[in-house]
Amino acid sequence: MGINSNRVEHFSGHTCPENIVTVSTEAMSPLELHRVCLPPPQTTLQKLKHRLSEIFFPDDPLHRFKNQTCFRKLVLGLQFFFPIFQWGPNYSFKLLRSDIIAGLTIASLAIPQGISYAKLANLPPIIGLYSSFVPPLIYSVLGSSRHLAVGPVSIASLVMGTMINEAVSYTEEPILYLQMAFTATFFAGLFHASLGLLRLGFVIDFLSKATLVGFMAGAAVIVSLQQLKGLLGIVHFTTKMQIVPVLASVFSHKDEWSWKTIVMGLSFLVFLLTTRKISMRNPKLFWVSAAAPLTSVILSTLVVSLLRSKAHGISIIGQLPKGLNPPSSNMLYFHGPYLAVAIKTGIVTGILSLTEGIAVGRTFASLKNYQVDGNKEMMAIGLMNMAGSCSSCYVTTGSFSRSAVNYNAGAQTVVSNVILASAVLVTLLFLMPLFYYTPNVILAAIIITAVIGLIDYQAAFQLWKVDKLDFLACLCSFFGVLFISVPLGLAIAVGVSVFKILLHVTRPNTGVLGNIPGTQIYQNLNRYREALRIPKFLILAVESPIYFANSTYLQERILRWVREEEERIAANNESTMKCIILDMTAVTAIDTSGIDTICELRRILEKRSLQLVLANPVGNVMEKLHQSNILESFGLNGLYLTVGEAVADISSQWKAHP
Amino acid sequence: MGINSNRVEHFSGHTCPENIVTVSTEAMSPLELHRVCLPPPQTTLQKLKHRLSEIFFPDDPLHRFKNQTCFRKLVLGLQFFFPIFQWGPNYSFKLLRSDIIAGLTIASLAIPQGISYAKLANLPPIIGLYSSFVPPLIYSVLGSSRHLAVGPVSIASLVMGTMINEAVSYTEEPILYLQMAFTATFFAGLFHASLGLLRLGFVIDFLSKATLVGFMAGAAVIVSLQQLKGLLGIVHFTTKMQIVPVLASVFSHKDEWSWKTIVMGLSFLVFLLTTRKISMRNPKLFWVSAAAPLTSVILSTLVVSLLRSKAHGISIIGQLPKGLNPPSSNMLYFHGPYLAVAIKTGIVTGILSLTEGIAVGRTFASLKNYQVDGNKEMMAIGLMNMAGSCSSCYVTTGSFSRSAVNYNAGAQTVVSNVILASAVLVTLLFLMPLFYYTPNVILAAIIITAVIGLIDYQAAFQLWKVDKLDFLACLCSFFGVLFISVPLGLAIAVGVSVFKILLHVTRPNTGVLGNIPGTQIYQNLNRYREALRIPKFLILAVESPIYFANSTYLQERILRWVREEEERIAANNESTMKCIILDMTAVTAIDTSGIDTICELRRILEKRSLQLVLANPVGNVMEKLHQSNILESFGLNGLYLTVGEAVADISSQWKAHP
Repeated sequence: MGINSNRVEHFSGHTCPENIVTVSTEAMSPLELHRVCLPPPQTTLQKLKHRLSEIFFPDDPLHRFKNQTCFRKLVLGLQFFFPIFQWGPNYSFKLLRSDIIAGLTIASLAIPQGISYAKLANLPPIIGLYSSFVPPLIYSVLGSSRHLAVGPVSIASLVMGTMINEAVSYTEEPILYLQMAFTATFFAGLFHASLGLLRLGFVIDFLSKATLVGFMAGAAVIVSLQQLKGLLGIVHFTTKMQIVPVLASVFSHKDEWSWKTIVMGLSFLVFLLTTRKISMRNPKLFWVSAAAPLTSVILSTLVVSLLRSKAHGISIIGQLPKGLNPPSSNMLYFHGPYLAVAIKTGIVTGILSLTEGIAVGRTFASLKNYQVDGNKEMMAIGLMNMAGSCSSCYVTTGSFSRSAVNYNAGAQTVVSNVILASAVLVTLLFLMPLFYYTPNVILAAIIITAVIGLIDYQAAFQLWKVDKLDFLACLCSFFGVLFISVPLGLAIAVGVSVFKILLHVTRPNTGVLGNIPGTQIYQNLNRYREALRIPKFLILAVESPIYFANSTYLQERILRWVREEEERIAANNESTMKCIILDMTAVTAIDTSGIDTICELRRILEKRSLQLVLANPVGNVMEKLHQSNILESFGLNGLYLTVGEAVADISSQWKAHP
Repeated sequence: MGINSNRVEHFSGHTCPENIVTVSTEAMSPLELHRVCLPPPQTTLQKLKHRLSEIFFPDDPLHRFKNQTCFRKLVLGLQFFFPIFQWGPNYSFKLLRSDIIAGLTIASLAIPQGISYAKLANLPPIIGLYSSFVPPLIYSVLGSSRHLAVGPVSIASLVMGTMINEAVSYTEEPILYLQMAFTATFFAGLFHASLGLLRLGFVIDFLSKATLVGFMAGAAVIVSLQQLKGLLGIVHFTTKMQIVPVLASVFSHKDEWSWKTIVMGLSFLVFLLTTRKISMRNPKLFWVSAAAPLTSVILSTLVVSLLRSKAHGISIIGQLPKGLNPPSSNMLYFHGPYLAVAIKTGIVTGILSLTEGIAVGRTFASLKNYQVDGNKEMMAIGLMNMAGSCSSCYVTTGSFSRSAVNYNAGAQTVVSNVILASAVLVTLLFLMPLFYYTPNVILAAIIITAVIGLIDYQAAFQLWKVDKLDFLACLCSFFGVLFISVPLGLAIAVGVSVFKILLHVTRPNTGVLGNIPGTQIYQNLNRYREALRIPKFLILAVESPIYFANSTYLQERILRWVREEEERIAANNESTMKCIILDMTAVTAIDTSGIDTICELRRILEKRSLQLVLANPVGNVMEKLHQSNILESFGLNGLYLTVGEAVADISSQWKAHP
């Protein structure tokens, strides 16, 4: 406990000196000084253990296992790894009925979306259906969210399509392209599972809400514009993703525009957007928008097959193979020149799909007041994708739109995913020939309707209102995605978000505190008009850790406060300043450069006959000060528990020894 | 002021309810509630202006110009840009005498060091002398430090040599190599000057002390090992910088070792190290180590020239051209394949030389209690290097070792730099032939002696003692420099330092507070044994801004605190918890994700019939909460100025409406 143990001074009675005119005396209760404590001593190992457990196990995942019998521990362990054991025993017919209704509802949405999103990733449409079959089954065993509807999602499909396409052309080398897609899916799953296993789930927290709002809007704009290919019936289209080549492609191929396609596309787009509007206005009518895609597919297929002799300009899906997912583990690609691209694609789509899956899971969990363990969820999504990559599936995760429909349709457990998979199974086995005449334009309309909801201009406006730098991060990711590329746009936005944290650390707030008369409360003079300066004292609050990145700034800034205070005193003919109190309450950490700064400040101020005193250093700052031996130089009268005690004690000392 | 204006409640009298057993009643003075204020309203433009002035002008560099006459402003402006006008008028013969002594002392050190460091950068020795002539003259006009001794320095020389050599071999293309060196110097100067002009000087603050300690030690080890080439007389030596190829080079060329060179090198190395030891033991004998290099050069040159018939194995400097710096602006290289290398080298050496120059300037300024303006200093160093690149000089800055000698020798102003330049002038004009027989081995010994002081194992030990993560950053930069490369080693160390900041933000401390009996002070229960819990309340302190990067963590962590408190209460049969107070004093900022977290927490806790209350949100947090309209959901009883007032008010409400 070092020098602090000899610091148990008590002085009672009315200690408020007369010269502190601004502290009204009736408010001062009998005062005793409280010493500043060090935190309880810990060895380096204990500290490391505590730190690591806060980093990796902040939610204390094993707390349920404490004080339990062996058998109970086994049951809890099974429930921990396979949540099915948790809800399985209590599963009832009533729950099953709800789940069947919800499952069939999402199936009607998932089948057309699956085909559409596979096209978005430049993959054969059948892959989209495969991906809606195996992953939901695996998730239903491992997943802990009750409302997540699993399958391909728009953003991940889009990003995968773009990134692979930069290396391999899907028209020229379709087999290699497919190999790359499965390999990227495998690495995405590996990435998810390792994050979960290593409990590094917090890396996805670095995609802030601002970044995501901008990113999603940018991606939605790009995807919508790319769908003009299908909507206008253009045959030759760019494979690039940036807004400039896409728009150039649209207008340089005006001769390929097909009026039949355009009429059909626009009418179904209007239909889909109208149903979307209806469901948004009245959430009880969620089934209107949920059923619309399947209705559109059926209607448009009927129209095309009936008018097939007259509908030559309209491109159709064509033959789809019947049957279940073929194994694809032999198509994984672990060597050769494109491995790096596959890994990079896997990681980027992995991050994006994980972010969506976890966010969706958390949202619905909090609506129904249950907990979703992020790291466990990551392992479930990861294993699902690794298994998917061996059974002809591409990246899947919890989709926001389908999970919302699932929730609204009254899903109670993950059994709704099993029902979804069963519906897809029936489709794969028996209904594939029915899609022969489905026009591609309807897939474009479905995609546009799905992604348009990603443009959240209200959230962007809220960002502008509350935090201009967050809005800047949002703009960066929006324009980065539009004009540069998806990974770079994301990287820039993450950079801006991290820069914002660093900026706050590099240029922290400092302010002069004053006493609120009649209390022991010291608050910012600038904010609290009733707060009053205390003559001879300058009380400064530092609102940030003191680190290498701000130690020079803080030293200069504090000296500037002192200079300005001296100028003010000189201008107003007040009594000269004698003591500077640093309120360290918000200095939540300090490093070696920060400690040097404190020493240096003390030395500089001492040369000017000014006393420097610290008030309320927090635990780990106190510890560092102690370890670096600078507490000794502060000695008895340099550390106080509160600003109020510092003012009272130092004033009384001046009174005793003027 | 929104909803806060209707929050001017006063209730006097003894409000402390009986059920708060741990708050001793005699300590509670008559209590009135204080409302939480918003900071004074500011427009976005005002905020931006304030923010920018804090970022770029934290030292308020123009404060001296305020309230001055026009003429006075002109004089101050001249003094601002040319500090010579500040000290010039008061310059006296007495000061001149001190400066002459100091100038001659550093000249005796600078001449051999200049030649040696030029060899370190693989440049002709004469370039080192050129670089000790023009830059000091320019600095003496522009620089604001009185003790900085300007010239080539070891680290920057080493890095420049390595980085250019990776692209251009100095033995095969000496002219191109020289062009690259001057071009890199130009870009280093441009980089310095732009940082100064744009007031971005704080970027060098990101090289923390820990990083620099490790980096310097690593560089010193590498440089010393590289000098084995000269010390052992090896002819064929690697041009790489990593420790492995250097050591391989030393031992694979054993046949080239020359015993004469080794004997001479070792004896002078012992001599130089002994003088260094003497000066370190007794700072008054600084001249012993300051004069030693020149003495060694003279002695060794004499020995070699006298024994020239027998000293065949010893390599010598040879012919050096007489005369002043030739112009080299025609050698700057602004196009072609190597421009990128030159720019990269310029920026890396620029950062390193700037860091050394600014750190040295600040150190001696604080010893003599005067201020050095970092940004102005950067412009001085930048202009000096840009001018240098046009007059056959390579990168120069304030050298730590020579500035220390300058300071100890009693330098009073930058005139000592003029004296240094004059001494170099005389050397260049008349004494060059004397260096003909100077053996290269002596330069190696001088370099080793100079860089060995950069290994600061005491600082490293202090880092270990105070901050393990700082020590890790130090180790990373040490081993990064040794085994990978200088720029990458530096980048890794900066990465670790920034990661440390982010880690603190991502996993901030939280803790339960208790009341110190007899006071209104609430402190961490873990640290203050005398602090007591208040029944029915859980008071939590969050020690960090709430950002996207930690909002999920904090939400989980706070819910875990609540869960643990409930378990504790159940185990001890205490009265149930009803209210959670978040002490926001150290939450110095919040972003949109953070606001969402607070809302979410409030919603979750409300579902469990727990009240969430915020105590003492700081100005900008209050502002953001207000802008996002969530203050309304907190309403009248959700915000308090202090934890004490919150406890007293809420308890009294419970008493009134149980």
